[in-house]
Amino acid sequence: MSEVREKAASAKQAAAVMNRLTTNEKNKALLMMADHLILQQDSIIAANHIDIDRGRANGTSESLLDRLTLTQNRIADIAEGLRQVAELPDPVGRTLESFERPNGLRVEKVSVPLGVIGMIYEARPNVTVDAAGLCLKTGNAVVLRGGSAALESNRRIVEVMREALAATSLPPDALQLVEDPSRASVDEMLKLNGLLDVVIPRGGASLIRNVVENATVPVIETGAGICHTYVDESAQPAMAADIAFNAKVQRPSVCNSMETLLVHEAWAERHLRELAERFLSANVELRGCERTLSLIPEAKSATEADYATEYNDYIMNIRVVANADEALAHIRTFGTMHSECIVTDNTENADAFLQQVDAAAVYHNASTRFTDGFEFGYGAEIGISTQKLHARGPMGLPALTSAKFRVYGNGQIRG
Amino acid sequence: MSEVREKAASAKQAAAVMNRLTTNEKNKALLMMADHLILQQDSIIAANHIDIDRGRANGTSESLLDRLTLTQNRIADIAEGLRQVAELPDPVGRTLESFERPNGLRVEKVSVPLGVIGMIYEARPNVTVDAAGLCLKTGNAVVLRGGSAALESNRRIVEVMREALAATSLPPDALQLVEDPSRASVDEMLKLNGLLDVVIPRGGASLIRNVVENATVPVIETGAGICHTYVDESAQPAMAADIAFNAKVQRPSVCNSMETLLVHEAWAERHLRELAERFLSANVELRGCERTLSLIPEAKSATEADYATEYNDYIMNIRVVANADEALAHIRTFGTMHSECIVTDNTENADAFLQQVDAAAVYHNASTRFTDGFEFGYGAEIGISTQKLHARGPMGLPALTSAKFRVYGNGQIRG
Repeated sequence: MSEVREKAASAKQAAAVMNRLTTNEKNKALLMMADHLILQQDSIIAANHIDIDRGRANGTSESLLDRLTLTQNRIADIAEGLRQVAELPDPVGRTLESFERPNGLRVEKVSVPLGVIGMIYEARPNVTVDAAGLCLKTGNAVVLRGGSAALESNRRIVEVMREALAATSLPPDALQLVEDPSRASVDEMLKLNGLLDVVIPRGGASLIRNVVENATVPVIETGAGICHTYVDESAQPAMAADIAFNAKVQRPSVCNSMETLLVHEAWAERHLRELAERFLSANVELRGCERTLSLIPEAKSATEADYATEYNDYIMNIRVVANADEALAHIRTFGTMHSECIVTDNTENADAFLQQVDAAAVYHNASTRFTDGFEFGYGAEIGISTQKLHARGPMGLPALTSAKFRVYGNGQIRG
Repeated sequence: MSEVREKAASAKQAAAVMNRLTTNEKNKALLMMADHLILQQDSIIAANHIDIDRGRANGTSESLLDRLTLTQNRIADIAEGLRQVAELPDPVGRTLESFERPNGLRVEKVSVPLGVIGMIYEARPNVTVDAAGLCLKTGNAVVLRGGSAALESNRRIVEVMREALAATSLPPDALQLVEDPSRASVDEMLKLNGLLDVVIPRGGASLIRNVVENATVPVIETGAGICHTYVDESAQPAMAADIAFNAKVQRPSVCNSMETLLVHEAWAERHLRELAERFLSANVELRGCERTLSLIPEAKSATEADYATEYNDYIMNIRVVANADEALAHIRTFGTMHSECIVTDNTENADAFLQQVDAAAVYHNASTRFTDGFEFGYGAEIGISTQKLHARGPMGLPALTSAKFRVYGNGQIRG
């Protein structure tokens, strides 16, 4: 049996135990994991050094190496994250529906763990702890498949967390790390129907595309975001400029940042030049439609491909539109149903935009950067779902649960 | 552009209109569709005759021909079904969450249509109307791909329903029928990410397997059911016999009927012979484990493959177990997470069973045949989900909705 299948099968066995735990047992386990990560930080940092040395030898960029690096402070933050998840309400065991039928059957729909979650992600070893904490808190077992660049770090971190679990009522087998760094191990995970109940990819566009295209196990798609800010004719100049600037520049590398600014032609005539200068002085590369170029000669010409690109970088498109309908049509064509914003003082246009835009989150007069589990007050974030089934937008702990009907009778049969 | 892609693209255009309709507009359209089906019943029956003649010429069995046949009475029932769906509450536009953040952002999570639903199903033309009604009621557009055996019937039915829509505020393009009867049209639908938001298969195991294995569009898996009834030591003999008999015999062809009876050894010694005779006199073929065979020599020997088969027929397995844990282990191995039942007077065993069995619906002292949208009082049934994401068990109208966050600000940016 392959490593992947064997570990998924062990996780499934463990899931049957996880399913029966109390909130208190799960929370104690998370705190124990946090304590052990601190206690064992030296060995974790030592393992992390092996990854970093290998990365440096392979020519990995300094920014990626930085994301890979674990320090005492970072491990303390990661452990603190587990403690915070322990404090969140348990989403398992809630009564979602409850009714009695005329024949006397009593039906209760209750929330239950999903079962076994497959998590496929890239370099950062903090995701290993984060995902483990969220999955165990929700009574699930988890099979982690992190990026090969962090393999030694992940291996040691999972070892430490499993040692912590061994001192609790949670089965250590609820936490599995796939160590095979080849693409084959990912491909195998994606087809493990019957062992995995769901696969959640966390990472760049190509990782997510591979999962969506090849998985037969149900997937929660996260992450890709081509987000727009539409500045309407009546938008207050300072507010529009602040929102657009924040959406692009505050953290360009994330999925809820803006890629394309759509501007009403009347607003553009009056204010676009000034806004563009603010972007240019922040070293944002501008690509624009023809009307944009006539106002901002510093911009390059934007292609259809540009409008369809998630830059995640200091690059953005600007397109001047005749009205809100043109903006809506652009978003329908190029949006990824993540986060979209209208800045306007016209309530009718705002309502139409919020109604008609098909996206996880639609904003009136606020930055798209707020699409985030913590910003929404969920206390944790599994990811941001960009699909419409099961969960949409920022996912808190309930997104890692399913439901089950319990039906109580006294001999009812169907006539 | 292929027929499938073209129709899905038209449906997507129409979905943008569907999204904005009032409950009243949608209900009126369903009633108009019902009226037109009655008005045009002669032309529908004429089209249906073509399908039936072709089926008979091809050697289709009489029972399948019967399922395919439309009569005035059946069309009246189908139209009545649309009227009943019109009367159900609209699941779109409900506020699911609503909160204000410390920074003043007001967040509302509201239910919205899924968008465009692809429905892939087999022979019966009533599914064409049923699926259309459920999808339009929930503000979705739908692309129907029925079985080729019912092509002429489906074509005329969809024509009639689109004519009805043309007299309402609903876009006729919200209702599409794929007429290409080849397997290629199904394969193409399964990959239409960006045009279809979900695919729902309704039909036999091989149809569902094909969809689950090949779709890149998200799927709601329905239907396969290897359901068990476990008769515990303390089960009341008459109640246990009635529940088991009902679960198998009342309608063996459906997914919530029983395939395997698990019996505690002590109960088996006292009562299994009598129960088996009841099954035998109803012409149910019995296949059993060794201990069953020693009590019921009429039974054949059951293989592992038998335990893994959804017979949907007058055939069943019987296995004697030492205790509830053995029953649970059998269900873990062979169950399809659909519906499972324990008959017992022992509350502790009942609670453990309902807690530990991983299935959409778990019953204490009632027949598994109750897993059904109508029996649960939902007034409609899209199908019975056997997956854990999005919807589980009998799906009413809310299963055809998604959600969206509307966020209202006054210039908030992220710090």
